[in-house]
Amino acid sequence: MNKERSSRRIWTNLEDLKAFTSTPGNGCTRLPFTKETRGVAEYLKREMTLAGLLVHEDPAGNVIGVLPGCDRTRPAIVMGSHMDSVYNGGNYDGIAGVVMGIEMARILKDEGRILPVDFVVVGFMDEEGCRFGTGYFGSYSILGQMDVDQCRRFTDRDGISVYDAMKSYGLDPEKVTEAAWPKGRIGHYIEAHIEQGPVLETEGIELGLVDCIVGIQRYMFTVHGRSDHAGTTPMHMRKDAVDVASKVISHVADFARAEGEGTVATVGYVHAVPGGMNVVAESMEFSVDIRSTDNNTIDRIADEIRALLAEETSKWSMTYSEDRKLTITPCNMSASMLDLMEASCREHGMSCIRMPSGAGHDALAIGQSCDTVMLFVPSKGGRSHCPEESTDAVSFGKAACVLFELITQLE
Amino acid sequence: MNKERSSRRIWTNLEDLKAFTSTPGNGCTRLPFTKETRGVAEYLKREMTLAGLLVHEDPAGNVIGVLPGCDRTRPAIVMGSHMDSVYNGGNYDGIAGVVMGIEMARILKDEGRILPVDFVVVGFMDEEGCRFGTGYFGSYSILGQMDVDQCRRFTDRDGISVYDAMKSYGLDPEKVTEAAWPKGRIGHYIEAHIEQGPVLETEGIELGLVDCIVGIQRYMFTVHGRSDHAGTTPMHMRKDAVDVASKVISHVADFARAEGEGTVATVGYVHAVPGGMNVVAESMEFSVDIRSTDNNTIDRIADEIRALLAEETSKWSMTYSEDRKLTITPCNMSASMLDLMEASCREHGMSCIRMPSGAGHDALAIGQSCDTVMLFVPSKGGRSHCPEESTDAVSFGKAACVLFELITQLE
Repeated sequence: MNKERSSRRIWTNLEDLKAFTSTPGNGCTRLPFTKETRGVAEYLKREMTLAGLLVHEDPAGNVIGVLPGCDRTRPAIVMGSHMDSVYNGGNYDGIAGVVMGIEMARILKDEGRILPVDFVVVGFMDEEGCRFGTGYFGSYSILGQMDVDQCRRFTDRDGISVYDAMKSYGLDPEKVTEAAWPKGRIGHYIEAHIEQGPVLETEGIELGLVDCIVGIQRYMFTVHGRSDHAGTTPMHMRKDAVDVASKVISHVADFARAEGEGTVATVGYVHAVPGGMNVVAESMEFSVDIRSTDNNTIDRIADEIRALLAEETSKWSMTYSEDRKLTITPCNMSASMLDLMEASCREHGMSCIRMPSGAGHDALAIGQSCDTVMLFVPSKGGRSHCPEESTDAVSFGKAACVLFELITQLE
Repeated sequence: MNKERSSRRIWTNLEDLKAFTSTPGNGCTRLPFTKETRGVAEYLKREMTLAGLLVHEDPAGNVIGVLPGCDRTRPAIVMGSHMDSVYNGGNYDGIAGVVMGIEMARILKDEGRILPVDFVVVGFMDEEGCRFGTGYFGSYSILGQMDVDQCRRFTDRDGISVYDAMKSYGLDPEKVTEAAWPKGRIGHYIEAHIEQGPVLETEGIELGLVDCIVGIQRYMFTVHGRSDHAGTTPMHMRKDAVDVASKVISHVADFARAEGEGTVATVGYVHAVPGGMNVVAESMEFSVDIRSTDNNTIDRIADEIRALLAEETSKWSMTYSEDRKLTITPCNMSASMLDLMEASCREHGMSCIRMPSGAGHDALAIGQSCDTVMLFVPSKGGRSHCPEESTDAVSFGKAACVLFELITQLE
């Protein structure tokens, strides 16, 4: 393969894909089941077809391209990542991994090679979960862990359910279970991704071999108080949801700092109801996202938050409720695939390290049930989930080299 | 006058007016310059006309009814309150005071009396300030303290300016200064209002004579951090706006509790940007509303908040900004009008107390420059700024009795 040619082709795709955002000039905002995601899906289908893949869109909205192998009955090699973004995110998170998969098919075509097994590229729907507060919709669908009840259960900020969003996207949510793949269909899952953190750039390393993906628990907590006039209700008679919730939120990051070991905890969303400047809030909702390579650490932080919520709300005879949005246990990557990639790096004189992934990925979902590996390219300034997110074009060429050697060595 | 008849007429108006909400079934949401406020304005104009008032709408959107007196050159007696509500507020806050003013005109008509001076009823535009974060728009306009630059400056959550909102309401914002009344036009200003607090009901008192209105300072503070991926950015490298802002917000109510003396402080609005569950927030905005009968107390709390913001943001090399939305100094009410109302209560065997108003009112703006008084009717359960807000019909009849004796005794 030719690293420079791969790098150019990948870069051209990524430049083209920048168009599909609802916030042009302010990063990539590409929520699931929107016209921006539809634009990306159609673009990917065209590129997949040009690369010689057999293309279809499944009932969950995943875009799937298949390059038949010599023996189609054996488990496939699957590469992919997600099509959606966070609000005002970057142009590489997720989508670069789909493009890298398509590039593998292009190199196979260039070289006239046929793999012993099917090679499948997937553009997953809704990994981030920003719209519905969930995530991994596409990968769970493929794994047969999604059903129509869940589509009805979760709604976005405007009250639109996954069910209705799917319909407006042109899908039939009643058929979502038909997106499931037969058990054993995936032999190896490989996901290329930007690092989204500062480690590779800071240490001057060219590629990151992911040996573990952190576990995640994600919650929406609501503190229930009482709405009152902000001028006439004496302080001692209030049930002020913002006051009580902020006394908990202000400790969430500290709980993660106290754990150390790379543990992180984030409150990214807050919402006071009714939200008037001169009204004591009757409720305050806030999200909590906790990640660690140790599941016990995650459980402990969630329990500390619950205990503090119970303590602070009880002082004012208030209550709280919790809605668990996501639970994923930490996932170890395939040792044999890591060894193959490390050998490639060594042979080509590229520096690499083994590292954990602090971000969840479709590989975290898929990796629970088959051999999985991830490859990281450096993120400039370690920035991600923001408009400044960037990676050198040449890094994608290096990654393509290692990935191509990986998929052609797998049995 | 006939208390029962007044009570019935006032109640009928208030029942009719419940229709003008954008959240039917969930309290009154009547933001300024919306179709709901337009509905109220047209209703009030009809009722004013039926009561014999000469009606017009001024360039600020205030609805004004004038009952000419014997000597039209002398300062007028003005009664009024506001037409707008908070989000999901009640059906009595503000609007009941406008209806009470119209009822005075109806009683004068019933009894065939003409006052020595003009009697003017005003339905003020935008006292609450919920839409644009300001308030007192109508009363400031009448006082000549509003101009087109301010109309351009403030915007609502959708980025719509007061200027554009006025245009869509059918007003010409370029003419807003023409809403100003000549200096000395108001001789006495009288505002009837629900108490919006628990004092009268708790103590079993029929009417509250307001001797002072608290001062208010209102701010929007913003903590500026940096957006990062919630999984891959180590805790020590973050500039987490929610973490830092919550460490300040969690003390705001405590600052007011420490001051005592009826001081209150409220954070009613919070907003994290971009707001994704898996994104470290780059900024967090929150409102602060501080009220006290002592202006020094208000200044002290605002300074404590600024000091804490400076301390917490500096720990992470972050910054904050403040936007002062409202500054009103405490205002004493007219001793002579209070005496007249107290004498009326005594004569009719109605219990009353003198009390401060913890809420701002149009009387707070108008009262800075002329003799002003307020009369409170009890709020059921002390509830206000919420759908449960309520007052007995009979209380309005008692208030009408005292107010009618007041306006007919003023020279």
